[in-house]
Amino acid sequence: MPSETPPGTTAQPRSSAARLGTLRDRPDAVLFAGDGEPESPTALAQRIARLAAAGALEADDYSLGGVVARLEARWAELLGKEAAVWLPTGTLANHLAARRLAGAHPRVVVPAESHLFQDEGDALQRLSGLAVVPLAPGRPCFTLDELRAALDAAFGGRVLNPVGAMVVESPVRRQAGQVVPLEELRALTDLCRDRGVGTHLDAARLFMMSAATGVPPRGYAALFDTVYVSLWKYLPAPFGAILAGPAALLEGMHHDRRMFGGSLPSAALAAALALDGMDGLETRHVEVMERMRAWSVAIEAVPGLRCAPFEHGSNVIPLHVDAAIDAEAFVAQLDGAGVYVPDPSPAWGAHLLACNPTLLRRPLEVLVADFARAAEAARRPATG
Amino acid sequence: MPSETPPGTTAQPRSSAARLGTLRDRPDAVLFAGDGEPESPTALAQRIARLAAAGALEADDYSLGGVVARLEARWAELLGKEAAVWLPTGTLANHLAARRLAGAHPRVVVPAESHLFQDEGDALQRLSGLAVVPLAPGRPCFTLDELRAALDAAFGGRVLNPVGAMVVESPVRRQAGQVVPLEELRALTDLCRDRGVGTHLDAARLFMMSAATGVPPRGYAALFDTVYVSLWKYLPAPFGAILAGPAALLEGMHHDRRMFGGSLPSAALAAALALDGMDGLETRHVEVMERMRAWSVAIEAVPGLRCAPFEHGSNVIPLHVDAAIDAEAFVAQLDGAGVYVPDPSPAWGAHLLACNPTLLRRPLEVLVADFARAAEAARRPATG
Amino acid sequence: MPSETPPGTTAQPRSSAARLGTLRDRPDAVLFAGDGEPESPTALAQRIARLAAAGALEADDYSLGGVVARLEARWAELLGKEAAVWLPTGTLANHLAARRLAGAHPRVVVPAESHLFQDEGDALQRLSGLAVVPLAPGRPCFTLDELRAALDAAFGGRVLNPVGAMVVESPVRRQAGQVVPLEELRALTDLCRDRGVGTHLDAARLFMMSAATGVPPRGYAALFDTVYVSLWKYLPAPFGAILAGPAALLEGMHHDRRMFGGSLPSAALAAALALDGMDGLETRHVEVMERMRAWSVAIEAVPGLRCAPFEHGSNVIPLHVDAAIDAEAFVAQLDGAGVYVPDPSPAWGAHLLACNPTLLRRPLEVLVADFARAAEAARRPATG
Amino acid sequence: MPSETPPGTTAQPRSSAARLGTLRDRPDAVLFAGDGEPESPTALAQRIARLAAAGALEADDYSLGGVVARLEARWAELLGKEAAVWLPTGTLANHLAARRLAGAHPRVVVPAESHLFQDEGDALQRLSGLAVVPLAPGRPCFTLDELRAALDAAFGGRVLNPVGAMVVESPVRRQAGQVVPLEELRALTDLCRDRGVGTHLDAARLFMMSAATGVPPRGYAALFDTVYVSLWKYLPAPFGAILAGPAALLEGMHHDRRMFGGSLPSAALAAALALDGMDGLETRHVEVMERMRAWSVAIEAVPGLRCAPFEHGSNVIPLHVDAAIDAEAFVAQLDGAGVYVPDPSPAWGAHLLACNPTLLRRPLEVLVADFARAAEAARRPATG
Repeated sequence: MPSETPPGTTAQPRSSAARLGTLRDRPDAVLFAGDGEPESPTALAQRIARLAAAGALEADDYSLGGVVARLEARWAELLGKEAAVWLPTGTLANHLAARRLAGAHPRVVVPAESHLFQDEGDALQRLSGLAVVPLAPGRPCFTLDELRAALDAAFGGRVLNPVGAMVVESPVRRQAGQVVPLEELRALTDLCRDRGVGTHLDAARLFMMSAATGVPPRGYAALFDTVYVSLWKYLPAPFGAILAGPAALLEGMHHDRRMFGGSLPSAALAAALALDGMDGLETRHVEVMERMRAWSVAIEAVPGLRCAPFEHGSNVIPLHVDAAIDAEAFVAQLDGAGVYVPDPSPAWGAHLLACNPTLLRRPLEVLVADFARAAEAARRPATG
Repeated sequence: MPSETPPGTTAQPRSSAARLGTLRDRPDAVLFAGDGEPESPTALAQRIARLAAAGALEADDYSLGGVVARLEARWAELLGKEAAVWLPTGTLANHLAARRLAGAHPRVVVPAESHLFQDEGDALQRLSGLAVVPLAPGRPCFTLDELRAALDAAFGGRVLNPVGAMVVESPVRRQAGQVVPLEELRALTDLCRDRGVGTHLDAARLFMMSAATGVPPRGYAALFDTVYVSLWKYLPAPFGAILAGPAALLEGMHHDRRMFGGSLPSAALAAALALDGMDGLETRHVEVMERMRAWSVAIEAVPGLRCAPFEHGSNVIPLHVDAAIDAEAFVAQLDGAGVYVPDPSPAWGAHLLACNPTLLRRPLEVLVADFARAAEAARRPATG
Repeated sequence: MPSETPPGTTAQPRSSAARLGTLRDRPDAVLFAGDGEPESPTALAQRIARLAAAGALEADDYSLGGVVARLEARWAELLGKEAAVWLPTGTLANHLAARRLAGAHPRVVVPAESHLFQDEGDALQRLSGLAVVPLAPGRPCFTLDELRAALDAAFGGRVLNPVGAMVVESPVRRQAGQVVPLEELRALTDLCRDRGVGTHLDAARLFMMSAATGVPPRGYAALFDTVYVSLWKYLPAPFGAILAGPAALLEGMHHDRRMFGGSLPSAALAAALALDGMDGLETRHVEVMERMRAWSVAIEAVPGLRCAPFEHGSNVIPLHVDAAIDAEAFVAQLDGAGVYVPDPSPAWGAHLLACNPTLLRRPLEVLVADFARAAEAARRPATG
Repeated sequence: MPSETPPGTTAQPRSSAARLGTLRDRPDAVLFAGDGEPESPTALAQRIARLAAAGALEADDYSLGGVVARLEARWAELLGKEAAVWLPTGTLANHLAARRLAGAHPRVVVPAESHLFQDEGDALQRLSGLAVVPLAPGRPCFTLDELRAALDAAFGGRVLNPVGAMVVESPVRRQAGQVVPLEELRALTDLCRDRGVGTHLDAARLFMMSAATGVPPRGYAALFDTVYVSLWKYLPAPFGAILAGPAALLEGMHHDRRMFGGSLPSAALAAALALDGMDGLETRHVEVMERMRAWSVAIEAVPGLRCAPFEHGSNVIPLHVDAAIDAEAFVAQLDGAGVYVPDPSPAWGAHLLACNPTLLRRPLEVLVADFARAAEAARRPATG
């Protein structure tokens, strides 16, 4: 079936997902999407073979022991926490953390734009009977005053509505990966500590944040009772999450994990693949971030393109394309050059480019030249 | 122990509650607090004796049948609804309504300043696993746009968070009794109907609202699936609430009532006392509201006092007292005259006067003169 | 309105409820139903007038303070417990007790024939997420071995299912008012104490049990952490319940009460009526029980009637009527004599007679004669 | 490392787990434990490489699509159901099934010895507010009369406690793998259908049951609304479960899966490994079962050993060892011969031998000879 477009007609632009699908397996492609580097099934199988040969797939028993325990220990160390528990998903990690921290105080203050409030099916409310109070719609996080008001309100009613836990997400996926500055996090967690309110950080992309701000992972983790980090978003594992915190708080959490149906009979493969990917993780992301910054400066030289990094951004950067350039043609041109750029986001009025190790696949100047050529080719004919 | 204040010292001002307690049983007192007229134990006992003699205390069986059923039928008729259920408290009425309406769609949108969100101990979340989403902190109600955004957001997550019910409160106790205008209520409920979202009106003080706006109770009730009205705030009953709505929705709700521990073995006394107080209820509140308006105009003539009725107020009116008048002395003077006025509200910067039938105990000009004398006596000596 | 049956036709036998309704207000009627003495609306109104005149209706504030507090203090004293909380229903008392005792250990062991398991709409499971484990169907209570097995099983699964509370009911309404012997209760509660499991006694009819066994109320209460006693089943109040226990455990329970919608704005009437009925309560029930025993012996002399008291019964006694006597005619004859006897219970194969103070309305020999005449009149003609 | 015990001392017997661990990776070992054949990390890696090369690891998106969808379709077909959903664990499969089936009728009748009641942390009660009613402790399943009584009781209380779902497990792990006969299952499900009660079969080991009884998987599945089958107990996959049932009932269940934290970002590996293992699955288990039966007959010829297959057993068979044989020495001897037999079960008074494909690793007569030699060597010296 010929997919050619007859002359004189306009081709239907391809969807972002379709375009990404085409480029994903091209080894030299630069993909401004996702936080890690895609891994082909073949590469995955080779890595598994290597791990098996090295005896690195020590069996666990319903996600207890074996390589799972080794992975947990490494993360506890890395985050400076007494203990860490492996969980199959971040959704479960956030849920179990909030459930434990809240205890008998059922209100949980969360950002309105957080994964927890928007993308977890109201699990805390429906399954654990927690009263989730969303604050600060449209912004990455609530202010100290907003938090204080929410804590105060909990005692203003005729019936006590005590707040047991505060959750903060950073970087915030639904806010273009913006991060909450360290000093703001410190103020929020200090207030909670004063009030006896537990604190949890959804830092799925913690290493992105550290690479962007220079604050080490432990620096963030130290502020909060518990921290969740994703094991698959930028690690080459199929799934998994780490929840780290005080040993006393996490004690027996594998019972909760099993109650939720999350204790896989064997989690060794997922754990070993994540553990294997940890070496060099921090360095790699620092390198990506440096390249991203250099690129964002260099791109300013290309007529019609403009980068406006967020003041508190992480690995996402908005690219504005001048009206004189046909955006559809522009991304199609880049596709042809093996560079994936998503369609512009209506909410942000820009292409949101997520940077990841694929950025390192081409020298900076080559990549800038790719953009320059695409912009030029997509320039609309001047009218009048 | 002598409670006299030695000459030359300042007496400790008495608390609002203490001052009200002193005046409550004085039959000619005008009390700017509460929505109804206080009833002494003796008066209550006499009314019960009259009801017993008249055979008006027909027995119920665990709050089913008897005078309870008569009361329910009268309210269903009055509100233009197919059915009505008696419940011991408004807290339970709001809860059961939201629980039923939400069904399998666990999000419930509520005003952040509502009784349901602030004063019911997060019952919906903790006991029924509902995901209560509070909107519009600091205002009586959310706007149509805010509601639409909340309904849209429920489908924006990776997991569905469908909204099953919307609750509106009007008048809003925590917003000085302000009401939500009828046309706004209509827009909100129309949107919900379009989206298949159930609607509940917490109209504990429905008759206040109708007296203030001229819209009859049925006019409000018609917009919502269910309506709750209090039976004790302005009715002379010790407790009780009515929840009215479609027969199919309320069917079998007495099972839920009992599950919550709210099916009193005998509710006949409470029901009969409420039923007895319904005659003339609407007329009485219209009369109160007219007197309140006249008073608010007349008081403007008193130097140092100013009334600023809310654009959408009900029976609460803010009284501003000039700085030249000593507010403590002013209310103490009024106490002496048998007029209770609460201390000024820091949040509103005014004395919030709640009007009720005690306003009718004195002719308008007498009451205005009481205020004028008190203001004059409390005027601070001019300095310089 | 003539209710006569034309000659030659068979009258439809009247239902138990209808028969009881007719006799209830007859002041000399002996009613073998219920635990207390019915009170007419007029008598109730007179009692309220007396209480009002005596200043005994001190106002409470949402069921806190006033006469409610006096009632609570009296029950705490009577039961030998640090604290007591008034609640509107026994359903709520059982629920809040189990909820508090269970804490974070969600299994609650209960008798399969208990009110809690059969008659409270699965409230613990549905509203509090507790895992109620029913034991011993068809019997008043589980044995020590059954309890031990249930506690052991809670730790045998791959996931912990820890038991937080044990509930026992005694007397057991669904088991003809049979009581659990003190020594059995002691063994059960001792085991729970050893295992760190909280204990609650549903002793709605505690005074019946004490009157039957001679063990004082405090003797039972001392074994359990918490005890619930009904305030209306044999007290002349329209509704109400007491939950007594350690002060630390009951602290702040009024917040839970309000969350469930059970904090009546004014509970003074109900509390004052219950408090008023407490004087002489214990003595009165001892008297009833003695009369019941005497009657059960005397009735043996009546041909065709036989009483077989339960080994561990309270105020319910089975009356067996010989097949030679027409049971329907027999109860109809007794109706005519102002004596209410319920229809025979299919489950127990006997009329279950509940004794209460109406038993004292006639001298023993008069009552026995009433039964003798009814039995004689209802004797079927000998065939053959 | 010498593990020899010095002469004259008694060696500490090794635990079952330790003994099994030693033998697990020996390729000719016969392991009377587990339902499938253990797979070494190397073998696993090779299989994954084969699947990758064959393009059989089609990517899914949060457990939707790709090879996951292929696996679901195959199981729906195999079980004769409209739809099937992949879930990470059986615990979640049972939970979601019961939750959906129960709907607004919160009682769920389950066997007291089921995985659901014993081994899932009371998840249904704690997370979904369902009222789980366990029946028939100590037996594989409840009788039709017991079920009927439980359904009847749900309507006998003053509050409705309606039963929404019945769960049956077969084979029953905690009852030595005994199965519930087809005609009993049919009677139970027929009654439920009459009463409008949903039905779920926990058939984690469905193929074992079919191999044992000759009833095909579809024969069992047809009786129930939903069926859960394990994907790892006898399939060579690390984890996973299938829940099959009517399309309308399972619609949107991936939202629930994600709410529980069970939607793995990538489930392709687990799904592909399970799918790969399905070929020949039924045949293989029939072969195992035939060998087991032959072995149980042949073993009777060995002095001191006796097999007593359950009337309704599946792949577990009790082996009784005569008191004249030292049981510890016996299993140690078998260990030496590469045959793992678990320690005797105190509850069953026998070694419970679970049969699986390792049984096929040696000819029948060789295996019988292994047992004969071990029994002989472990025979205690005759005394007197």
